[in-house]
Amino acid sequence: MPELSTQYLNEAIEDSKPFASQGSVNAAIPTFDDTMKDLLGVTIITKDFEIYSAGDYKQNVPMQSTSKIIGLMLALQDFGKDRVFQTVGMEPMGDFFNSISSLESPDTNKPFNPMINAGAISVASLIKGQSVDKRFERYLTFLKDITENDDLEMDESVYQSEIANGARNRSLAYFMQSTGTLVTDVEEALDLYFRMNSIMMCCNDFARVGLFLARGGIDPDGNKLIPDHHLRTVKAIMLTSGMYNASGHFAVEVGFPCKSGVSGSVIGSVPGKMGIGVVGPAIDSKGNSTAGGALIKKLSKDLELNMFGIENTAGE
Amino acid sequence: MPELSTQYLNEAIEDSKPFASQGSVNAAIPTFDDTMKDLLGVTIITKDFEIYSAGDYKQNVPMQSTSKIIGLMLALQDFGKDRVFQTVGMEPMGDFFNSISSLESPDTNKPFNPMINAGAISVASLIKGQSVDKRFERYLTFLKDITENDDLEMDESVYQSEIANGARNRSLAYFMQSTGTLVTDVEEALDLYFRMNSIMMCCNDFARVGLFLARGGIDPDGNKLIPDHHLRTVKAIMLTSGMYNASGHFAVEVGFPCKSGVSGSVIGSVPGKMGIGVVGPAIDSKGNSTAGGALIKKLSKDLELNMFGIENTAGE
Amino acid sequence: MPELSTQYLNEAIEDSKPFASQGSVNAAIPTFDDTMKDLLGVTIITKDFEIYSAGDYKQNVPMQSTSKIIGLMLALQDFGKDRVFQTVGMEPMGDFFNSISSLESPDTNKPFNPMINAGAISVASLIKGQSVDKRFERYLTFLKDITENDDLEMDESVYQSEIANGARNRSLAYFMQSTGTLVTDVEEALDLYFRMNSIMMCCNDFARVGLFLARGGIDPDGNKLIPDHHLRTVKAIMLTSGMYNASGHFAVEVGFPCKSGVSGSVIGSVPGKMGIGVVGPAIDSKGNSTAGGALIKKLSKDLELNMFGIENTAGE
Amino acid sequence: MPELSTQYLNEAIEDSKPFASQGSVNAAIPTFDDTMKDLLGVTIITKDFEIYSAGDYKQNVPMQSTSKIIGLMLALQDFGKDRVFQTVGMEPMGDFFNSISSLESPDTNKPFNPMINAGAISVASLIKGQSVDKRFERYLTFLKDITENDDLEMDESVYQSEIANGARNRSLAYFMQSTGTLVTDVEEALDLYFRMNSIMMCCNDFARVGLFLARGGIDPDGNKLIPDHHLRTVKAIMLTSGMYNASGHFAVEVGFPCKSGVSGSVIGSVPGKMGIGVVGPAIDSKGNSTAGGALIKKLSKDLELNMFGIENTAGE
Repeated sequence: MPELSTQYLNEAIEDSKPFASQGSVNAAIPTFDDTMKDLLGVTIITKDFEIYSAGDYKQNVPMQSTSKIIGLMLALQDFGKDRVFQTVGMEPMGDFFNSISSLESPDTNKPFNPMINAGAISVASLIKGQSVDKRFERYLTFLKDITENDDLEMDESVYQSEIANGARNRSLAYFMQSTGTLVTDVEEALDLYFRMNSIMMCCNDFARVGLFLARGGIDPDGNKLIPDHHLRTVKAIMLTSGMYNASGHFAVEVGFPCKSGVSGSVIGSVPGKMGIGVVGPAIDSKGNSTAGGALIKKLSKDLELNMFGIENTAGE
Repeated sequence: MPELSTQYLNEAIEDSKPFASQGSVNAAIPTFDDTMKDLLGVTIITKDFEIYSAGDYKQNVPMQSTSKIIGLMLALQDFGKDRVFQTVGMEPMGDFFNSISSLESPDTNKPFNPMINAGAISVASLIKGQSVDKRFERYLTFLKDITENDDLEMDESVYQSEIANGARNRSLAYFMQSTGTLVTDVEEALDLYFRMNSIMMCCNDFARVGLFLARGGIDPDGNKLIPDHHLRTVKAIMLTSGMYNASGHFAVEVGFPCKSGVSGSVIGSVPGKMGIGVVGPAIDSKGNSTAGGALIKKLSKDLELNMFGIENTAGE
Repeated sequence: MPELSTQYLNEAIEDSKPFASQGSVNAAIPTFDDTMKDLLGVTIITKDFEIYSAGDYKQNVPMQSTSKIIGLMLALQDFGKDRVFQTVGMEPMGDFFNSISSLESPDTNKPFNPMINAGAISVASLIKGQSVDKRFERYLTFLKDITENDDLEMDESVYQSEIANGARNRSLAYFMQSTGTLVTDVEEALDLYFRMNSIMMCCNDFARVGLFLARGGIDPDGNKLIPDHHLRTVKAIMLTSGMYNASGHFAVEVGFPCKSGVSGSVIGSVPGKMGIGVVGPAIDSKGNSTAGGALIKKLSKDLELNMFGIENTAGE
Repeated sequence: MPELSTQYLNEAIEDSKPFASQGSVNAAIPTFDDTMKDLLGVTIITKDFEIYSAGDYKQNVPMQSTSKIIGLMLALQDFGKDRVFQTVGMEPMGDFFNSISSLESPDTNKPFNPMINAGAISVASLIKGQSVDKRFERYLTFLKDITENDDLEMDESVYQSEIANGARNRSLAYFMQSTGTLVTDVEEALDLYFRMNSIMMCCNDFARVGLFLARGGIDPDGNKLIPDHHLRTVKAIMLTSGMYNASGHFAVEVGFPCKSGVSGSVIGSVPGKMGIGVVGPAIDSKGNSTAGGALIKKLSKDLELNMFGIENTAGE
């Protein structure tokens, strides 16, 4: 097993970069262009706060779907597990993240899980606050605490693009209103959801989120922000549903909780061990970073991070 | 944390038994009747071969869907991962285990995963052997090796019932033939599948299967039967898809790989730690043992077995 | 064969009224209440302008889905058949009128037909005019011409209720925007659609619409408003899709073009012979008037109006 | 309006032939090859038994799906409307003719209609007789009576091909067995269905079937074989569902009952007027003859056969 080091990460980046050619950059993100296709960066932070970075790890990209796990943590804090999962399920499903037909299924009266768009909008509608501004402020403050990065902010152009291209999400939200799943103001829930997706982060920030989940919900100052049982819930749902409709593939090939975004971002969380942040803007048809996915598989294999292997257990 | 002991297990059984009243016994299984509704048994075998049993742990029930993980191991041995997953996917899905509409989806040319009926029939079609008899003999020998139980055998009445009630599985198999997914003889694949489901096992046998997966694929004589990477694959798929369309729920509430059968059986596998076998014939509408599910959730919580918790890691 | 007369219609009403008990009044319509459940009225106007009425034929109800055929005629006038059917299909389907999953089907890039909500919203988006007000004015003027009823107007409370309960239709419209099917302003298309549904009409008005279609698109003053080929298109689509997902049933049991609305209204059009207007507010789970449906089946049988019978042909 | 004559039909054939290039010959039919792609023939028989033919009208092709309307007539005779439509619906649907997901819909416990494969297999299972041989003999005798053609017979190679390529139909049939829709022996129902599809007919035979339906169910000897109400039922279902998932298109563009088969055959029935038989082996992706479809649209327009036009009515 290779030792975790900057040099190892540099080599891993070089190995994984060629996979970028199999993907394409999301044209809907205004801060993106084709020159970014070959970017690939990674940051790993261990439970003892050792930090390793390589490649384009300083590149900022919008959170997109990685925001879904932050929203879920806040909603669990605000309302508890029972109430949250009255609104959204916790079952993985095989459809695309923006699928609407699953919402019409007579077997479900709610979105399958909080990692698909409908579910995340529904979860966002629960986050407490007297206005969208206040609710977003809470979200951002929580995220700054976790990442220890006070400079985090929303990119206005990404936010405007989310609104302009928001027809599908708007359709999902109004569908949920029609079935009684979404009981708060639809446009407010969408507005908050669009803002959450538009926060700009780099690999270090993503890695901090992964570490927060991996290390027991303790912020860098040692404050316990989220109880263990909520963290376990979030991580389990990441593993079964965090990588869009390739989640099963990543459960097998990576074997620890991950969450991707269509900005090519990936958050990895290895329970008790480390947080991983990856940015690689070229994504595949399912929405996952092609080079970033290759990289995180390599890390899992080389560093023996797969939770389903007996190497990665207390017992052996 | 309570110590794992027979007394603890006795108490856990008593706590979980009342949940049997929420389920019902599968009327299609000829060896079952309503008097079995309240049965509940468990066996745990640790990595050091300590054995703890409680309740109705001697009750034999047919394997039903728990056979799916044995079939998958054999097919992986016979053909390797690439070939197997040309035939079947590894993605979880939200539909019922005998769903056929997913097979007609234009996004998939194969069953979503090996834990649903269509996928398991497809996997069974791959198991090598010159005849159904030979193929089943291999299956049974492999199972005897794992469980160290030479008395395992198929129940003829269960097998006949599988055939008599096999219309849905037959429909799934012919559908796969029509799309080119199933290329071997359909009736032979079904016959093997029906036999595999009809083997009678008790809690100890189920626990041995869990232990085999948890302990690195080594049979009781110390022989390495299956390589680690195949075991990781099977366990990851169990976690995302092993408990029918409640797999997400069990990933959150139990947090280690499990596989259930409509006979009320559950195999649990805690990587590096232990195998768990549960029998509780009363099942819910999704096909999972109600009392058995409650029991396995309790074991996970009390004994801190949840893989997504930092307690269950080398690091803490 | 009984002669068409007021007395015959009175008897037909009495025969059909008991079927009202099998339906229920649409609670979402603010002008409706349970006291209206047993209402049933009918007006028949022959090609020679003989008028027969019976029962509660003076009862005004909102057009609801019967507006869909007026919208289709206007859009065909404005843009021609090719353009309209780029936006919407002409195939019947088996789903409910407000189904959204059909819009996600990879085989269709547009709503199945103009008689379901999505299709009608899409058609409404095509009606020409510089503002919603102007477009609605055109619609109303056209309807007044057809019905020779200058008093037709929208009910404000129905319109407000359409808006308030419009989440599903809004979801459908934004979905079509997301796929590029709906290219005009979504809220304007919805606003026009809601207004069209809210016009109050009685049996005589509905019968006039049926007669207009049956008699060659000639208004009472003898002006040819719509060419024959557009009328044939509308009538054929009414026959295959006009009675929600009971259209096949009505094609068999009635056998001439009909269009129903959830207000319990039915427009019948017997080519070359007559127009029929029915109002019976108690509707079944598919959205069709129970007593009105029974009545129109009886009329078809008694008066030999079924187009698939050889009695109703030039040749016999 | 042109006069119906052999010369007119010859011209119509020439006009329509070029559309053959848009289709392709069904490779699964053993009597077919690519040299047949450009064939196109037609026979029209009027209510007064005038016969007009043109093009390749002597070409024999297997009945394929055109057999569905014969099977439906026999089942209606044997069991009556109520019993038949307990087994199968009468609603059009938008899916392909061999779709299975519609059978899993919770809104339906039976196939949508008798014109799709599942529905036709279900209907075939109802045809009375003590063995498949006897049941097929009844079917063939009925067909000989209608067509006045004693030479009709099944093509053995087509029948064998139906069996060999029957996986999808077998899947449909076993699915219906699993839901209790198909209660007779599955393999017998399939065998009868395959034989029915394999009878060889030419344009004259197809036209005779159309005439039988159009002229009141009277065989050439003047015997009333099927009551009017059953004929109306069959014709209405042909109009809403007879041309696969292009039935709505043909209802608009042709406007009288038709039934197509994947052999490129089309039966047209103009109530009270005529029967039409068309053979043009090149079919489109939905299963309809491309040149044959063009021809039948032209006939409808030129000869004013569209039932939704006021020209084609007693009144004008």
